[in-house]
Amino acid sequence: MQKNIIQHILKFVDLSEDDIVVFNKYVETHQLKKKEFLLQESRVCNHLYFVEKGCLRMYFINKKGAEQIVQFALDGWWISDYQSFTNHTPSDYYIQTIEESAIVSIDNQNLDKLLFELPKLEKYFRIIMQKAFAGAQLRSKLLYEMSKEEFYTHFSTSFPEFMLRVPQYMIASYLGLTPEYLSELRKRK
Amino acid sequence: MQKNIIQHILKFVDLSEDDIVVFNKYVETHQLKKKEFLLQESRVCNHLYFVEKGCLRMYFINKKGAEQIVQFALDGWWISDYQSFTNHTPSDYYIQTIEESAIVSIDNQNLDKLLFELPKLEKYFRIIMQKAFAGAQLRSKLLYEMSKEEFYTHFSTSFPEFMLRVPQYMIASYLGLTPEYLSELRKRK
Repeated sequence: MQKNIIQHILKFVDLSEDDIVVFNKYVETHQLKKKEFLLQESRVCNHLYFVEKGCLRMYFINKKGAEQIVQFALDGWWISDYQSFTNHTPSDYYIQTIEESAIVSIDNQNLDKLLFELPKLEKYFRIIMQKAFAGAQLRSKLLYEMSKEEFYTHFSTSFPEFMLRVPQYMIASYLGLTPEYLSELRKRK
Repeated sequence: MQKNIIQHILKFVDLSEDDIVVFNKYVETHQLKKKEFLLQESRVCNHLYFVEKGCLRMYFINKKGAEQIVQFALDGWWISDYQSFTNHTPSDYYIQTIEESAIVSIDNQNLDKLLFELPKLEKYFRIIMQKAFAGAQLRSKLLYEMSKEEFYTHFSTSFPEFMLRVPQYMIASYLGLTPEYLSELRKRK
């Protein structure tokens, strides 16, 4: 059932058959249709989500009342509102499926229990968080130095799968472009 | 010598006297003057840096040849180019002291050895990285929805110590404002 997440963990940490049994005791799996919500604004985000297969988006409603997408997650990616998850404060975000998705989730208390029982997974989550932060540093640098057009080119070259799987208006929201301007950029390429 | 980092670790993980001896075997301490470099562009960033006391800035040289500051670190903060550190690739950044500073550093190989010998520190670094990423998510949201003026107000309210310790032109660089406009904003407050 949770094949991909186990493969993902095995890239960084060894797991015995017994370890996998322990792991499965603490995580849940969800088969979700398109447009289902895993998190809604003003709720505390108590879970980390791993995409076994599918696609999620994370967004908030901005001052103009529009959806502002801040992150996507495809197969093999973790996603959560870590501010809300870490501090147990209400979230400003929604996390929603963009397509039919298989998700593995673990809640805050079960993560503590899992890490207590299988401390070697601390290493896995440390590496995952380190990579996530490295990605955030890179993204922040690109936003400082690139025009929106350059950022679009970088994004579409680095993540071609998104361009195929994610609706254009969502990519426009993520990149801070109007859908019309994005469509023009795509024609020019 | 490394009092603050031990206190910082003890907030999250217990350490015995023996553990502290092991820890000290793998870290280095540095007494730096103002304007000394810990990292320079095109070098691989092989270290994580913890500010025992002092202040660091991390910046890159943008296309116009100007210094673009992306991060500061005060007493009790970790700083590194995690992209370079994780992937062993040349860095685009400089990390430099803003004032006389006491720094604790650990290099990539020693971090591996330390975590092998004291695996309980995996938890500490996992939590540190999770908090860093949570901070990056929050900052990214603020940049999406705030004007530069609002971001300045938020920054100066959230981190009043920076306003006292960091030169104005560096805060202007970090916030993407001209020094003249920042000076005007400060007068208005």
